[in-house]
Amino acid sequence: MINPVGSDTLQPRFVYDSDRHQALRREAEGLPSVLMSSQAAGNAVMLGGGYFSPLAGFMGLADALSVAESMTMTDGRFFPAPVLCLLDDVESIRSAERLALRDPNMPGHPIIAVMDVAAIEAVSDEQMATMTRQVYRTEDPGHPGVATFNAQGRFAVSGPIEVLNFSYFQEDFPDTFRTAVEIRNEIAERGWQRVVAFQTRNPMHLAHEELCHIAMERLGCEGLVIHMLLGKLKPGDIPAPVRDAAIRKMVERYFPPNSAMVTGYGFDMLYAGPREAVLHAYFRQNMGATHFIIGRDHAGVGDYYGPFDAQEIFDKEVPEGALAIEIFKADHTAYSKKLGRVVMMCEAPDHTKEDFVLLSGTKVREMLSNGIAPPAEFSRPEVAQILIDYYQSRAS
Amino acid sequence: MINPVGSDTLQPRFVYDSDRHQALRREAEGLPSVLMSSQAAGNAVMLGGGYFSPLAGFMGLADALSVAESMTMTDGRFFPAPVLCLLDDVESIRSAERLALRDPNMPGHPIIAVMDVAAIEAVSDEQMATMTRQVYRTEDPGHPGVATFNAQGRFAVSGPIEVLNFSYFQEDFPDTFRTAVEIRNEIAERGWQRVVAFQTRNPMHLAHEELCHIAMERLGCEGLVIHMLLGKLKPGDIPAPVRDAAIRKMVERYFPPNSAMVTGYGFDMLYAGPREAVLHAYFRQNMGATHFIIGRDHAGVGDYYGPFDAQEIFDKEVPEGALAIEIFKADHTAYSKKLGRVVMMCEAPDHTKEDFVLLSGTKVREMLSNGIAPPAEFSRPEVAQILIDYYQSRAS
Repeated sequence: MINPVGSDTLQPRFVYDSDRHQALRREAEGLPSVLMSSQAAGNAVMLGGGYFSPLAGFMGLADALSVAESMTMTDGRFFPAPVLCLLDDVESIRSAERLALRDPNMPGHPIIAVMDVAAIEAVSDEQMATMTRQVYRTEDPGHPGVATFNAQGRFAVSGPIEVLNFSYFQEDFPDTFRTAVEIRNEIAERGWQRVVAFQTRNPMHLAHEELCHIAMERLGCEGLVIHMLLGKLKPGDIPAPVRDAAIRKMVERYFPPNSAMVTGYGFDMLYAGPREAVLHAYFRQNMGATHFIIGRDHAGVGDYYGPFDAQEIFDKEVPEGALAIEIFKADHTAYSKKLGRVVMMCEAPDHTKEDFVLLSGTKVREMLSNGIAPPAEFSRPEVAQILIDYYQSRAS
Repeated sequence: MINPVGSDTLQPRFVYDSDRHQALRREAEGLPSVLMSSQAAGNAVMLGGGYFSPLAGFMGLADALSVAESMTMTDGRFFPAPVLCLLDDVESIRSAERLALRDPNMPGHPIIAVMDVAAIEAVSDEQMATMTRQVYRTEDPGHPGVATFNAQGRFAVSGPIEVLNFSYFQEDFPDTFRTAVEIRNEIAERGWQRVVAFQTRNPMHLAHEELCHIAMERLGCEGLVIHMLLGKLKPGDIPAPVRDAAIRKMVERYFPPNSAMVTGYGFDMLYAGPREAVLHAYFRQNMGATHFIIGRDHAGVGDYYGPFDAQEIFDKEVPEGALAIEIFKADHTAYSKKLGRVVMMCEAPDHTKEDFVLLSGTKVREMLSNGIAPPAEFSRPEVAQILIDYYQSRAS
């Protein structure tokens, strides 16, 4: 099985030992505490589940600046993006050696983690701007990732953390949320050697399904981990149980036995395009994937990034040998009327748009809302039916 | 795949829809609330995860009495044991139509479920005694299950529930706790048709491992679900992470790829021997197992039950056709020096005790504490090493 990044064994920051867990919880109630940003809380969840292993906690300013610039910490270790706990006000914790971190995403703001404080550092506007530019490749406050990053405070509190829970992810998505530890365990149980991971946050139509089949076949992978980004619903999103049911039905009908796992992870998207693609690859290696599918516009937003920037960064910027996971460079896929099958669009250079079965998201939603299944060249009928049932139940 | 008990699809009581979940949580904060017993809270977890499907909530007195007597509810549906929410004091909830149920096993006693109250009924001492006798086959207050059952109040509040969380089980055992929904999903993904379940709460030594191999081979099962009873540690218990690591190592080394899953469930043991065995079989069918191993003294305690009562009840008392899951009747297993392999002791009638490699739990703990691995005929060396490391770390 592929090693985690930077070490032989995964180093999750969740406290598994029950006695230690309870002692830490009791201690935490007596510690000075701060309310984290949502982005920082998402990082705590990832650290807890082993996804960011061997990183032990939040980075100090020197590491964050170094990582933003070159994806390398001051001690030479690789990491794709700053992992910061940025706060507005640190007066009350100036002298804290141990600090309880409160979760902004749960009612009552329970403590999610305890930190051994290594440093509390002011971050200048210039340093924020530099990191923003390096990580997001823009300082445009209209970029949602940039806006979220810069809405945080200007003090970086850093140090190793011990994680007490997985925020709302485990509670809201009990059948889908997985730690990197769990996925590694299951890959080992299933006996998969070559495993490709696929990122999604939506139900999968035929083009996505076939992309996975193509990747598995070309890479010789016996296993696929469908790894869903879990999170709070945004307007227009398909609810998690509907999305999960649609994906599970697809796996049941169109993947051979023991060839696909349906799982999810909890994180706030950065929309950082190429840099986020590297982060995505990093934590897929940690969960035990040997390959990771990166398509056009991966983790991007608007037109901030070129369509293949998220692929090219692996060749141009990721330090040699930093990652063992391999990238499967994909393009959009669609059903070719000429060839009678789903193809990667870049591999059908003689095709025009009219040669493909293409439907906009708006059009598909409209059809489903009216109880009409998209053509079989676009959606599996069983998957379409689950989505139709959802849209119709919503309308009634 | 095997159907759940009593219906075509599993009917978990956990509220998966995010909007509904949040609305219910908000509503619950304004409802009259009661603190449940630990036993009732365990039932809520099982109802939430689909293990008790199609049961929708806590039974009324007539159903509980009927189930205690004949494992049949008043409407004729099968259920192995009363599922009661027994309270001391119901003055404050006399007129409640909806009721929030608080979890005694979590700090702060958060709400675990909301009930549509169907009835609040006084339970007489005689009715309690009758149920105790029928379910536990004794009224001896020295029986731990009897003591726990009778320490509860004398008012049964009943009605369907909607479950908000899985108590401490999901939080304390994030990599092992599974709902019946999850296990069904995974069995479907793995493509297993015949699946045998094995109940444990301890690390597995060679005898347990070989029992699973024997069951799989004789039953023609391609899959094994090791299903651990998760719960609070009792003195002398091996901590969960150590137990899990030992079992996972065994699976990794001694089971073929895609033949075993390591999972767990959250419940308070009843120690009700035969009746509990039927309940265990019930929820194993719901999680998708076609077969269930029941050995000598299953779920018993002391000498309250005959060694094979928990097997015989399936032939003598379970109504015909009530369960589709099949029981694999096992005996203790041990390594035979004569035959050079692990056998079921009842299948070696010519053997005397001296022909087997038998070690008491006390002896094994003593050896491990002194850094000595039990003989290879008793423990796999990789498993023993994990346990030695634990005992030695505790001693230092």
